[in-house]
Amino acid sequence: MFFEGSEKKFELSVNSEVSSLRQLPKSFWAECVALSQAQIISQVSSKECDAYLLSESSLFVWKDRVTMITCGTTNLCQAAMFLLNHFGVDKVGSFFYERKNEYFPRHQTSDFFDDIQCLQKILPGQAYRLGEANEHHLYLFHLDRPYEAPQTDRTIELLMYGLSGQAKELFTKENCQPEQIRKFLNLDKIFKDFLFDDFVFSPVGYSCNAVKGSDYYTIHVTPQDVGPYVSFEANIKNLDSQYIVESIVNIFKPKSFDVIQFDSQDVKDVNFEGFRKINAVEDQLGGYNVLFKSYYEPKVNYQKAEKLEI
Amino acid sequence: MFFEGSEKKFELSVNSEVSSLRQLPKSFWAECVALSQAQIISQVSSKECDAYLLSESSLFVWKDRVTMITCGTTNLCQAAMFLLNHFGVDKVGSFFYERKNEYFPRHQTSDFFDDIQCLQKILPGQAYRLGEANEHHLYLFHLDRPYEAPQTDRTIELLMYGLSGQAKELFTKENCQPEQIRKFLNLDKIFKDFLFDDFVFSPVGYSCNAVKGSDYYTIHVTPQDVGPYVSFEANIKNLDSQYIVESIVNIFKPKSFDVIQFDSQDVKDVNFEGFRKINAVEDQLGGYNVLFKSYYEPKVNYQKAEKLEI
Repeated sequence: MFFEGSEKKFELSVNSEVSSLRQLPKSFWAECVALSQAQIISQVSSKECDAYLLSESSLFVWKDRVTMITCGTTNLCQAAMFLLNHFGVDKVGSFFYERKNEYFPRHQTSDFFDDIQCLQKILPGQAYRLGEANEHHLYLFHLDRPYEAPQTDRTIELLMYGLSGQAKELFTKENCQPEQIRKFLNLDKIFKDFLFDDFVFSPVGYSCNAVKGSDYYTIHVTPQDVGPYVSFEANIKNLDSQYIVESIVNIFKPKSFDVIQFDSQDVKDVNFEGFRKINAVEDQLGGYNVLFKSYYEPKVNYQKAEKLEI
Repeated sequence: MFFEGSEKKFELSVNSEVSSLRQLPKSFWAECVALSQAQIISQVSSKECDAYLLSESSLFVWKDRVTMITCGTTNLCQAAMFLLNHFGVDKVGSFFYERKNEYFPRHQTSDFFDDIQCLQKILPGQAYRLGEANEHHLYLFHLDRPYEAPQTDRTIELLMYGLSGQAKELFTKENCQPEQIRKFLNLDKIFKDFLFDDFVFSPVGYSCNAVKGSDYYTIHVTPQDVGPYVSFEANIKNLDSQYIVESIVNIFKPKSFDVIQFDSQDVKDVNFEGFRKINAVEDQLGGYNVLFKSYYEPKVNYQKAEKLEI
C-alpha cells in the first residue's frame, strides 16, 4: 500500500485591511479544506493560533496569517485560490506556495507547474526550484510584491525519508495506541508547555499539531514500506534550530533528510554528526533568507532488490 | 526547454527455434521502432551486430538477441509487445525490461507499473526496484523462466546527471559540429577499432553507436539546462569495468552518476576517487548478477535557487 506523504504547503498573510482571520467561522475553514479534498478532524487553540488537524496534514490560522499543509493526492491549490479570491489579491501581504518532490508524481492530480499556472491567473509571482531536479528538491512560488517579514519570523521544515529503529517498529504496527506513540515521542520534553492534539490513522499513520502563543509545531508520519516519510515543521522562536532538528532526527532516525529554513533575519546554518550534507541552496526569496539542504547517512549497505507486486 | 533523457530499455533473446534475427528486413525493425514513437536515423553493422541509431536512442540486433533503448516520452513497451507477439513467448529465452527513474514522470505516457501490467498479460515475470524510491533508482522486470546467460555476457550502464566543464560547454552550444564532438570525446582512444555512427540533434543533443564483433557501446547526451543527463552503455568483454566507467566519467564530469552492471559471472565492483558511493543494491536476477550503485560528488557548493519560467 502506498500513501504519498510529501506535502504541498501555502502560507498567506493578509494586510491590516482584513479583520482577524480567527473571527471567520469554522464552517469557512471546513469549506476551504474540503476544496483541497481533505477534512478537518479536530482543533486545538492557543491565545494566538487555531490549529486544525486534517485528514491529510494541517491548517493553522492566526489573526493575519494562514499556513495550510496537505499531503496524499490533495489539491491544495484549490484551497489557496478560494482564500485568495475571498480576501482579494490586493489585501494579500505575502503568499508562498511550496511542493516537495514526490515519491510517485504520476499519482498526483496536478504538478507544481499546473498549480502555478492556476495561481498566476490572479497572483503575480516568481517560481523557483531549490535543489537539483534529479535529487531531493523543493518547488517554491511567491507573490512578487515588496514584503517586510515580521522580525522574529522563522520556520523550519524537516523532511525525513526512510525511518528506522524503534520509530519504524512502532509506527508500522497496525492500529497502534496514541498513548504508546505519545510516550515514545516524548515531545513535551523537547517542546515545553504546548497545547497538543494528535490522531492515529488506520491501519497506520500519525499526525499531531501543537501550539503555544503564536508558536506551532506539527508532525506527520507516513510509515508505509513504500515511501516511508516523516515531516516536521515549526516556527518556534526561542529554541535553537540545531537543537530542534537534532531532537527530531534522533527520534525517527531517517536514512536521509532535508532541512528547509525560512528566516526574516540571517539563517543559522545547522550541521549534523553522523550525516553528510549533499546539496545546499541559499537565497533571498519573498522577504526571507531561505536555506535548503539535504543530508544522507554515509553508511552504504549492499541491499537486495525490492520485489514489487504489480 | 526540457527533454527527458532517462531511458527505458529491453533486452530479448530468442532460442534456437528462431532463425537469425538479422535476416529480418530493415522494414521490420522500422515498424518495431515506429511503435515506440521513434524512428531509425541511420545504421552501422559489424560482422555480428546491426546497430540502429534512433531519433530517441538506439536499437542493436544480433543473431539471437535484441537490445532496444529509448528516451523522451516514447512508449518502448509497445515495441517489446510487437516482438514478443511476433516470435511467440515460448521462443523467448530471456527478457529484461528496465526503466530508469525520470526527471519528470508526469510528462510520460506510462509508468513502469503500467508497462509491466501490459507485458504480464503475455509474459510471466518478476518486477523489482533497485535503489530507494526517493533516490536514484532502477525499475527492472524479467521473464520468470530458468535461463543460463552466455558465459562472457556482461553489460555496464552508466547514467550521468549534471555534466560540467568542457563537456557542458561543448554540448550546450547550439548546432555544434559532429567533428568537434568526435574530437572532444576521442572515443577511439578508449575503445579501439569500433565501427562508429553518430548524430547531432538540433538545437542540442548527441547520440552515437559503435560496434566491433558482438561488442557495442552507445552514448546519448541530453545537455539541456533542465534535466542534464548522459547515458553510456556497453557490453565490451575484454576491457576492465573500472577503466570503462572512469574513462567516460572523466569526459562528462557529472555531479552524480549511477552504475548498473549485469554479469553472468561475478560482478567486478568498481570504485571511484573523487566520488562517494551512496546507495548500493546487489542481487541475482534472471540469470545475472546485478549491481546497482549511486555515486555523488562530495563537494557541496551553496547554490542559488533555480528560477523557473512557467
